Amino acid sequence: METVLVSVAEVALKSRPVRSLLERKLANQIRFFLVREGFTNFRLYRMQGRLCVETAEPERAAEALSKRLFGAATIIPTTRTTTELNEILRTAVETAVQTISPNESFAVRPKTVGEHPYSSRELAVKIGAEVLERLKEKGVHVNLDEPDRVIHVEAREEAAFIYTKVIPGPGGLPYGSQGRLVSLFSGGIDSPVAAWLMMKRGAAVLPLFLDQRPYVGEDYYLRALEVARIVGGYAPVPNFSLYSIDFGKVMERIMAYREPSLRCVLCKRAMYRAASAIAYKQRAQGLVTGESLGQVASQTLSNLTVISEAVSLPVYRPLVGLDKVEIERMAKAIGTYEATAKKVEGCTVVPSRPKTRAALEKVKEAEEGLGLAELVAEAAERIQRVRLIP
Amino acid sequence: METVLVSVAEVALKSRPVRSLLERKLANQIRFFLVREGFTNFRLYRMQGRLCVETAEPERAAEALSKRLFGAATIIPTTRTTTELNEILRTAVETAVQTISPNESFAVRPKTVGEHPYSSRELAVKIGAEVLERLKEKGVHVNLDEPDRVIHVEAREEAAFIYTKVIPGPGGLPYGSQGRLVSLFSGGIDSPVAAWLMMKRGAAVLPLFLDQRPYVGEDYYLRALEVARIVGGYAPVPNFSLYSIDFGKVMERIMAYREPSLRCVLCKRAMYRAASAIAYKQRAQGLVTGESLGQVASQTLSNLTVISEAVSLPVYRPLVGLDKVEIERMAKAIGTYEATAKKVEGCTVVPSRPKTRAALEKVKEAEEGLGLAELVAEAAERIQRVRLIP
Repeated sequence: METVLVSVAEVALKSRPVRSLLERKLANQIRFFLVREGFTNFRLYRMQGRLCVETAEPERAAEALSKRLFGAATIIPTTRTTTELNEILRTAVETAVQTISPNESFAVRPKTVGEHPYSSRELAVKIGAEVLERLKEKGVHVNLDEPDRVIHVEAREEAAFIYTKVIPGPGGLPYGSQGRLVSLFSGGIDSPVAAWLMMKRGAAVLPLFLDQRPYVGEDYYLRALEVARIVGGYAPVPNFSLYSIDFGKVMERIMAYREPSLRCVLCKRAMYRAASAIAYKQRAQGLVTGESLGQVASQTLSNLTVISEAVSLPVYRPLVGLDKVEIERMAKAIGTYEATAKKVEGCTVVPSRPKTRAALEKVKEAEEGLGLAELVAEAAERIQRVRLIP
Repeated sequence: METVLVSVAEVALKSRPVRSLLERKLANQIRFFLVREGFTNFRLYRMQGRLCVETAEPERAAEALSKRLFGAATIIPTTRTTTELNEILRTAVETAVQTISPNESFAVRPKTVGEHPYSSRELAVKIGAEVLERLKEKGVHVNLDEPDRVIHVEAREEAAFIYTKVIPGPGGLPYGSQGRLVSLFSGGIDSPVAAWLMMKRGAAVLPLFLDQRPYVGEDYYLRALEVARIVGGYAPVPNFSLYSIDFGKVMERIMAYREPSLRCVLCKRAMYRAASAIAYKQRAQGLVTGESLGQVASQTLSNLTVISEAVSLPVYRPLVGLDKVEIERMAKAIGTYEATAKKVEGCTVVPSRPKTRAALEKVKEAEEGLGLAELVAEAAERIQRVRLIP
């Protein structure tokens, strides 16, 4: 019987009830991803800290899970047998014959858990001898230190598993196991990577697009939709959506202010406020942004301080210590880079010399004069939600 | 004349005055590191967006800078010549002869900036021909697509530079160019990596050790000192120090509270408060911590919210979206891993079941009852500073 083994990441540090909760979440998410990929006939069970999926297509199942299943440390397509010695021998040798190419070297790595009438050494010797017998003529040979192929054999209490490769999972924690965050989601290079990193660490993320049209192009909105769809592909939920708030009036009001150099800080504070309003409504416990220290004028320590002051929720900035090239590398691995790097018409009213050290008192005075907080609160009342099907 | 060329990272996004400021900072920091490495005789100047170091030991200078000079994109040891054709030819061929081993392939990559009586193509053809002439008998040949060795020739207005390798710098922004942060510095695996990342992004960092002795072992303090010394090696300042505050009385007071499950949250809030007090005194604009979402009980979204509420300064958490294995990999690259992984006696009074969702109201009530804020403020008055010599 073909079986995929999934091991849970970072559980060593967790208490037994927390571990059990994480395993149950992960099991549900395995089911979600497999069903989405069209699997109809599979069986899912827990076994000694691992999750096991019985399926006729172990390779395809492992592929479906390996990139997207946050919380998985490793994903291993195996063949399951009984713990009976002859059965293990037969299956291991068959697997070896199918896997090892002519002139390659191999090693058998056995492991036994519980009581068995054979030792792991015995397993290795017997399997190794029979594989050699079958493949010697093709130049196949043993190399224990640096084998081309490894035949893994795990004899556990209930069953034995034979496998030849261990696929690394994405790591992290099961999606949604750590609560919920609102992501300030522009669809540029940074914000999707920031959202993805928090998702990988177990947060459910609501991407929020502050819709600055007509001060940005139509294509700016379409890009955000496209990128949110890619990010949503990692979320094992049926209703991943891009939330958006019409920021046209807010922008108009900011444009009316006499000092263009404060525009970006006023705009960012308004965005934080809107996101915070959504967070309270959706019971999210913080914001996540793509800010990176010193990358642009609004991301100096001074301006980040002024911007953060607008909200009382914590703001998580997983990219704050990374360079643009490092963020781009991550975006490529996640699959958002191409869509985010598209040339779109960004904000057309960025001043030529935005303030890098806006004074908080002055900013607050401006906001009060413009009635910005109220306007943002009104805008946030009319939130829109576009459900994304990945 | 041997010359090391340093190119500045991320300047493309910056305005001219900002760029000029970053270049000047970087020049001072090059001087600092070279002097620290015992260089006494070198000359430093700016040339068209690059910094140039004339020295008799270009390789050693490049090595000294390549790991530690935040803000450097590339570091290139070169030989400088006049822009006269014969001079370039002679030097390039000499460099090639010294660099290319028997049977290797090579290519010449020329670049001309400004007016010259020769084209870059001409440079490539003449140098290539003469190198072949000299080395053909040793099996050396041309391969323009995938050469083993590249002979770079840059003819600029004032001078020409010949070089064969481009060493990547650490990237980021010049140390201290982005203001100052206080780092909550335990000396464990995470906090030094977090501090280092913010340093790389241009923040000056003051590591603060909250000294919980006798609730932690003596070795816990010694580890923090050792790790801070390693981190300080990246700071181009003569007086990098570990700051510490005696937290004994604060701990004692927290221990007196009836509910052990709240201890960790009370302790963390006290630490944030102390760090915040130091930040105000030292004109730092935020805190940096090594927290990673969901890693331990005090790092759930709920508890991070409760802990963040204790201070009004922004808290930067560059590791919040990373897994332990990723953090460990960074620690190894930085050079802190070995020292931080040392077994030391950590906090002996961590409760068996710390709260993962402490209620803010209850926490505040406890703090008031214990008079914790005042006690922390008193403790922060008696800060100690140990200067570290790397």
